[in-house]
Amino acid sequence: MMSSKPTINYGLEGIYVDESSISKVDGQNGKLWYRGYSIEDLAERSNFEEVSYLLIYGKLPTQKEYDEFVKKLKERREIEPEIRNIIKKMAPVAHPMDVIRTATSMLVMYDNDPNNRATEATIDKVITLIAKVSTIAAATGRFRAKKSYIHPDNSLGHSENFLYMLTGKKPTKFESKLIDLMFILHAEHSTNASTFSVLVTASTLADVYAATTSGIGTLKGPLHGGADEAALSMMNAIGNPDNTEKYIEEALEGKQRIMGFGHRVYKTYDPRAKLVRSYLEESLTKEPSDEVRRLLQIALRAEKLMIDKLGSTKGIWPNIDFFAGPLYRVMGIEGQMFTPIFVASRMAGWGSHIVEYWHNNKLVRPLEYYSGSVDLKYTPIEAR
Amino acid sequence: MMSSKPTINYGLEGIYVDESSISKVDGQNGKLWYRGYSIEDLAERSNFEEVSYLLIYGKLPTQKEYDEFVKKLKERREIEPEIRNIIKKMAPVAHPMDVIRTATSMLVMYDNDPNNRATEATIDKVITLIAKVSTIAAATGRFRAKKSYIHPDNSLGHSENFLYMLTGKKPTKFESKLIDLMFILHAEHSTNASTFSVLVTASTLADVYAATTSGIGTLKGPLHGGADEAALSMMNAIGNPDNTEKYIEEALEGKQRIMGFGHRVYKTYDPRAKLVRSYLEESLTKEPSDEVRRLLQIALRAEKLMIDKLGSTKGIWPNIDFFAGPLYRVMGIEGQMFTPIFVASRMAGWGSHIVEYWHNNKLVRPLEYYSGSVDLKYTPIEAR
Repeated sequence: MMSSKPTINYGLEGIYVDESSISKVDGQNGKLWYRGYSIEDLAERSNFEEVSYLLIYGKLPTQKEYDEFVKKLKERREIEPEIRNIIKKMAPVAHPMDVIRTATSMLVMYDNDPNNRATEATIDKVITLIAKVSTIAAATGRFRAKKSYIHPDNSLGHSENFLYMLTGKKPTKFESKLIDLMFILHAEHSTNASTFSVLVTASTLADVYAATTSGIGTLKGPLHGGADEAALSMMNAIGNPDNTEKYIEEALEGKQRIMGFGHRVYKTYDPRAKLVRSYLEESLTKEPSDEVRRLLQIALRAEKLMIDKLGSTKGIWPNIDFFAGPLYRVMGIEGQMFTPIFVASRMAGWGSHIVEYWHNNKLVRPLEYYSGSVDLKYTPIEAR
Repeated sequence: MMSSKPTINYGLEGIYVDESSISKVDGQNGKLWYRGYSIEDLAERSNFEEVSYLLIYGKLPTQKEYDEFVKKLKERREIEPEIRNIIKKMAPVAHPMDVIRTATSMLVMYDNDPNNRATEATIDKVITLIAKVSTIAAATGRFRAKKSYIHPDNSLGHSENFLYMLTGKKPTKFESKLIDLMFILHAEHSTNASTFSVLVTASTLADVYAATTSGIGTLKGPLHGGADEAALSMMNAIGNPDNTEKYIEEALEGKQRIMGFGHRVYKTYDPRAKLVRSYLEESLTKEPSDEVRRLLQIALRAEKLMIDKLGSTKGIWPNIDFFAGPLYRVMGIEGQMFTPIFVASRMAGWGSHIVEYWHNNKLVRPLEYYSGSVDLKYTPIEAR
């Protein structure tokens, strides 16, 4: 009955699922490009709005295109009272990612033509999602901390407005740069689990709300979106910079995994981690609080030791998750809000992937190898 | 710079992603087994509760195990007032699948340990989801039709209670058999798009609410869950049974796709379609309304013609979606509720797959082939 066992591609490791021109991750050389532009250029010279435009449209905008795009984003930042209510109900008892997933799923009710899959209509929905999911994420942080909702401030750029809506304080110029950096670095990263789950959902021609809701659910998992929070927890557990080496060495001896090190694709230093690291060093010069100073010192000492122990020998290098937490702490952001920021920025990449995939859609329908029995005899319950 | 182009597995066609002992679909011979038991035996001799137990635990229950399982399901049918409220808000303006996705996503807030992934804890959450998502689906149908919520009736079995909560009428014995048949037939079908999307989300170790929410979003797409509704729309468009042959022939000449025919896996008659078909014939003997009688006649005449034209020559045979719509109409169920029934019953299969996958979890992280440029020069916006 059974044919010989086929190759099973667990985790789809090494399997190509699509052709794409959105981003290239060169894991061997530690390079990353969005639409052909290096992440270093974009991090230093662009901003999140322009990067979103680039990812979606495949080219850098002219001034006129940029202005129109930014105008749309600003006009759509506000979220409806019903969305705020659901966030308020859920935020005190559920994980922020659960709240954001539910609220994003609910956004579909304000779209009177959600199934319009024409390219321009799809892009328009993606712009709405980029605009509103940041507000949803910030509102989740507010209600979670039992604080009141802060309306968007259209005098601010996209990511600094997010930081303002979350913290209630107008960011300094340096903080604005930091949050925008994190939004840019998290905007896109090819078919990782969450982006792939967006495509699986989109491949049935379900709408962009359904697809991005899948992405948010997938990003919640600790093997994916939660690594930055886990890395920060470790640094908090280390507590004092002078404990760093002892803690790490003991963890390695106990075969504990150090979160924020190693990556399925990067086999060298994650280029995003390098960028975050440089801003960590700059943050140290800006008179941080004692807590933050300790964290930054722990992060840098742990990195040095880990590279000595594992980098050149085992190809296990820091990834962005290792340094993200300390940098978020520079901005006063709590650990449970890290993955929500990932969501808010990745909405640009997810949207771009949906637009691209629908140009040449193919339903995702893999196979399983069945290893159970067949033709078992059904016995009535009395006879079992 | 570019290496040679790798094989790209669009839609993951022919790619095995996992080993499983939950269900075997034999597409060449038109057979289907759940945990080794033929779908024909289960459809005739079992019921949805027992099938759910079988899928989850991998064996048929003893009487005691069955009674405990059914008791848990009954105790958990009721949905919280906040869930009812969100359904009431969304149902008048959003597609039922959007409503059910959002409400299911929200269920996580009533679980005080959603991230407990121990097998027994996972199964317990799956039981909760099977119990409540049926109620969510029925409530969505009620509020959509501007009718009031109907509380579960614990004197009724799982699927007949669903039908009662949806229609407000206690089902006849025949109707109870029909709805239970549809729940059994939709409970599981290996790694189709929605089940696979559940696994992609679960593979990050996100919780069962996140994973099943992805499944619901994926099932919404017209290439997946909506085919039964689309097939019914065609039958309604045919209107009079005597128009059937002319309509189908013109559609085929115009290269229109006939929904409910052809399947990625079944290359012969879908065994589930055969079962539904036999109940359609039985329904014709039960004095159906004129509308339903016409539909049943259209379905059977269309099937005959399609098999003559496409079955033996092109391997395009009826699948379950072709006959499901007319049978749902026998029960008085509206088209937009067909996919929600699919969700309510597939919750058993999705849950079983999560339990199984977590025994040997592997993060799903495929690759894309990058076909764009690299190292483009960033020009400032003024210079574009």
